[in-house]
Amino acid sequence: MSLSEIAVPTFVRLLGRLSGFLDKAAAHAEAKKIDPAVLLETRLFPDMFPLVRQVQLASDFAKGTTARLAGLEPPKYADEEKTFDELKARLTRTLKFIKSLDQAVIGAAADKDITFPAGGGTQRTLKGTDYLVLSGLPNFYFHVTTAYNILRHCGVELGKRDFLGVPASS
Amino acid sequence: MSLSEIAVPTFVRLLGRLSGFLDKAAAHAEAKKIDPAVLLETRLFPDMFPLVRQVQLASDFAKGTTARLAGLEPPKYADEEKTFDELKARLTRTLKFIKSLDQAVIGAAADKDITFPAGGGTQRTLKGTDYLVLSGLPNFYFHVTTAYNILRHCGVELGKRDFLGVPASS
Repeated sequence: MSLSEIAVPTFVRLLGRLSGFLDKAAAHAEAKKIDPAVLLETRLFPDMFPLVRQVQLASDFAKGTTARLAGLEPPKYADEEKTFDELKARLTRTLKFIKSLDQAVIGAAADKDITFPAGGGTQRTLKGTDYLVLSGLPNFYFHVTTAYNILRHCGVELGKRDFLGVPASS
Repeated sequence: MSLSEIAVPTFVRLLGRLSGFLDKAAAHAEAKKIDPAVLLETRLFPDMFPLVRQVQLASDFAKGTTARLAGLEPPKYADEEKTFDELKARLTRTLKFIKSLDQAVIGAAADKDITFPAGGGTQRTLKGTDYLVLSGLPNFYFHVTTAYNILRHCGVELGKRDFLGVPASS
């Protein structure tokens, strides 16, 4: 097995699930006559990021992790989304980018040194597997789950199935 | 690389982080004179699970996923925890169980059929890699992150570093 079998299906699948959360959130806002901007700016606590930033960060960790494993500099996206449609377009763009990467290069990255930003202007270098396990996946899941929790807290009718999807049986 | 390089470090690491959240939660309850049971029963929305259940489920997915990948029936733990200390003891027990498993068997499980409960009394069978990527990891991360979010929502001073830890530089 290779890193691409773990990384790519996770990011592709969960970015799709996240886009589905946004569909339900937009429908909820319309049905309850809530300004969508209120949901996009909701936080679970004052010093946490609002929904819009959680989605941007999920996108950033998905494209950042896969780009670096593929040996490329991650593309920068302007953080300017103001609507559910704009956020969904960013997720579509992120998915398209990930699918454009050379899966064989990602698959061969387990023992390659990957250098990535580690906060406060510092950089860190880890082997590809460690980078994925210690940084890429936990950060990505953190922001996708927090987006889900913000929407649940706002009363949007999401369930575990929206998060997991229905895995194909083998 | 093998499945054990992805699965085991993730569960071991995040169970330790989760135990750290509970330490901060217990200290917060003491400092603010909050009954710990109030935090343990807090939910982000009335039809979501409370903190105590999120921690039990994180334990269940950690031991369930690793046991099945190791070819064993997961041990059943009674869901009777009523205090932070009891929850921490469950996490310690879960960690001890995971570390007792044969890592080589987990490492060879990528293409093995794994049968697991899929809700409503049904069962599902997936290859080891798919089981880990589509069920084990997302479920586990979901419950650990939701426990974090409940505590953040209650004002417990946790930060991203409590969730990620400090990965060893290579």
